[in-house]
Amino acid sequence: MIGRLNHVAIAVGDIAKASAVYRDTLGAEVSAPVAQTEHGVTTVFITLPNTKIELLEPLGADSPIAKFLERNADGGIHHVCYEVDDILAARDKLIADGARVLGGGEPKIGAHGKPVLFLHPKDFCGTLVELEQA
Amino acid sequence: MIGRLNHVAIAVGDIAKASAVYRDTLGAEVSAPVAQTEHGVTTVFITLPNTKIELLEPLGADSPIAKFLERNADGGIHHVCYEVDDILAARDKLIADGARVLGGGEPKIGAHGKPVLFLHPKDFCGTLVELEQA
Repeated sequence: MIGRLNHVAIAVGDIAKASAVYRDTLGAEVSAPVAQTEHGVTTVFITLPNTKIELLEPLGADSPIAKFLERNADGGIHHVCYEVDDILAARDKLIADGARVLGGGEPKIGAHGKPVLFLHPKDFCGTLVELEQA
Repeated sequence: MIGRLNHVAIAVGDIAKASAVYRDTLGAEVSAPVAQTEHGVTTVFITLPNTKIELLEPLGADSPIAKFLERNADGGIHHVCYEVDDILAARDKLIADGARVLGGGEPKIGAHGKPVLFLHPKDFCGTLVELEQA
């Protein structure tokens, strides 16, 4: 069912500093930051030859990554995103298998403008998993 | 400097259960487990179209992932591995930039039979980074 690894998301407290680490120290291709007000994050994409790293910085008072950064002051890997062909079929299969889909199970439009769902970390090896319809 | 994302490593307490999650629930291609006695882990590889997920289960009394699992009982993402063309050149550049290379800075032969180094999470957005000479 799952296809490509679309991205690995890393939450950071200071996206300018994190961008400099990836651009200057690790020598990667790093995008300009984009404020995604409706998602409560500022994003930077790091383009690798086969996938992307997504840096996330909290934006606004109710950012979904604020609590994660309270627990992980240095930042850390927040989630992995796998691509699926049909997100509704994927959801129905996961629920039939007893896995928990977060947020009521209805796909939302994610930061890339495509339908996404998040899966419960306790059902997936302690890892927050995003599914994105490719 | 960094090239492909070689793999994302997920530490788990029960690799048979985690393999079943990825094979049966997420529908991915999952390898048989391999005991890597010299690395203190049992590994399973999940082949995605563009990269790999590596499941790690502690093996033996001094497993390098034992402490991580004490702090993360459900498991969790342990590290990301980026490929580099020349690991010694990469190391020298990182040290010149003030980044900390773990374990004295000499590459070791990793679980894939290639030279690897690990970088200090505090210098890389709270993320343990492995570099592997591709």
